[in-house]
Amino acid sequence: MSNSTSLPQSVTIKEMGPRDGLQNEVQISTEDKVLLVDQLSQTGLSYIEVGSFVSPKWVPQMADSKQVFERIQRQSGICYSALTPNLQGLEAAIEAKANEVAIFTSASETFCQRNINCSIEESIKRFVPVVDKAKQLGIPVRAYLSCIVDCPYDGSTDPQQVRSVAKQLQDLGCYEISLGDTIGAGTPLRVARMLEAVMKDVDSGKLAVHFHDTYGQALANIYQALHMGIATIDSSIGGLGGCPYAKGASGNVATEEVLYLCKGLGIETGVDLKKVIEISWIINQVLGRKPTSKVALAYGQK
Amino acid sequence: MSNSTSLPQSVTIKEMGPRDGLQNEVQISTEDKVLLVDQLSQTGLSYIEVGSFVSPKWVPQMADSKQVFERIQRQSGICYSALTPNLQGLEAAIEAKANEVAIFTSASETFCQRNINCSIEESIKRFVPVVDKAKQLGIPVRAYLSCIVDCPYDGSTDPQQVRSVAKQLQDLGCYEISLGDTIGAGTPLRVARMLEAVMKDVDSGKLAVHFHDTYGQALANIYQALHMGIATIDSSIGGLGGCPYAKGASGNVATEEVLYLCKGLGIETGVDLKKVIEISWIINQVLGRKPTSKVALAYGQK
Repeated sequence: MSNSTSLPQSVTIKEMGPRDGLQNEVQISTEDKVLLVDQLSQTGLSYIEVGSFVSPKWVPQMADSKQVFERIQRQSGICYSALTPNLQGLEAAIEAKANEVAIFTSASETFCQRNINCSIEESIKRFVPVVDKAKQLGIPVRAYLSCIVDCPYDGSTDPQQVRSVAKQLQDLGCYEISLGDTIGAGTPLRVARMLEAVMKDVDSGKLAVHFHDTYGQALANIYQALHMGIATIDSSIGGLGGCPYAKGASGNVATEEVLYLCKGLGIETGVDLKKVIEISWIINQVLGRKPTSKVALAYGQK
Repeated sequence: MSNSTSLPQSVTIKEMGPRDGLQNEVQISTEDKVLLVDQLSQTGLSYIEVGSFVSPKWVPQMADSKQVFERIQRQSGICYSALTPNLQGLEAAIEAKANEVAIFTSASETFCQRNINCSIEESIKRFVPVVDKAKQLGIPVRAYLSCIVDCPYDGSTDPQQVRSVAKQLQDLGCYEISLGDTIGAGTPLRVARMLEAVMKDVDSGKLAVHFHDTYGQALANIYQALHMGIATIDSSIGGLGGCPYAKGASGNVATEEVLYLCKGLGIETGVDLKKVIEISWIINQVLGRKPTSKVALAYGQK
């Protein structure tokens, strides 16, 4: 574990702030969202989840995703993605010219029921036409799998269950499965056991990790995942977000913390940490508070 | 690294809150300090650094350490320690019936000069009579070694320099050397390289790690250290403290976060996390704020 040879040489950071972050914060203006995405486009990030085409009844914070997609200044080489729960969402994402779409289900039956009102099996069935249509149009589909170590209702999740659902998502045609520790309760050995199980069916190159930092364990978990060959990490600028369905869930791990870790480990990300810190302070000012990122706090406001 | 067999079965948490924590916070009353130590004595902790016998000119927050030692309710099996910079301090610690004393120097020349006004060599010479006298009285002496990965003035510290000073402290008669990442800038591979170097001369059983969480890297660093056989961890309840001499330094890693990590890794600490969280909220209330510990925040106030 002290050996750098087992670490990836570079990792891809997938920025969740504008979607997974802001969907769990107070509503901000379309203008501020557009500004956030445009600023993030100048940092070297190659993937930004811009918004979500779900019912505004469920997620009012994302009701203006169409307008955000219309108004952002796209930069070449950056993938601007959207979350799409169904065919209607996919069509809206296509119209908005999202470069990529993402679907989502859970490794926990109870969470799936409470979050998207159906069984895991049913949720995957519902995604078949979404993935088929996206494929016809050449749009890559990513999958989010939640509750990969713990469920807020059922306690710990069986790694074999995570493996099974991850494999189904792969078989469905998703190019990558983002494994989410929704309530942030995971610790490195449990994460390792889960990854070991999943990697029996899904290659590490098709996996990403998505940690929430509720108990401050996210970086230790990411460090473990890096040692196991995972080279795609979801994170959220300034530690924005949480999960309204999971009690006690705080935001995603802060992009700043992940960049700092990677830099220290000699892992290339292509992302400019100082620019990210600057944007972190700006978006947190819009939200009326300081960043929760310790890196942003330590560097201070420009 | 995904293997639990390389982790220690149990670790000793050395609680720094009342000393390293509070010395870098606003002054609180003697009564509140006594209450904090007494409450910590009920959690299963076996080591509590109670205070420091340094000049109140330099550290006014610790001016009442004598009174705190007099008034605490000692529990059997707990070591109540004191920081002692010189013979005068040692005598005060003896009078206060400290079970153990600690001396401190730095792996960085510039930091040593600015923090204790002498060279590293000179600092070790000054400690000779302190350690000799403590030995005569059968009082164990611990050593804090600061700037073990970075110095706020000189940048990164050469692992061979850390090794050399650690060996001198061992030769001096210190039973344990606590390796401090004073400005919290370390990341796991750099910590690993430093530990590898130090462990050529000092057995892992005589080493502790002491991380500040300035950049949120402390738990990842601790996870690395655990995998290398380090089984003593310094931490501070609620993430109290910082370092007045090191720009940007925030508090020690929170005891709550370390306990949560250890529990998740199946490592025994003997410490009751829930009790620690409760005390964390109380002491932070005394300081007029919320804990910085994410674990304490996630569990909430009782």
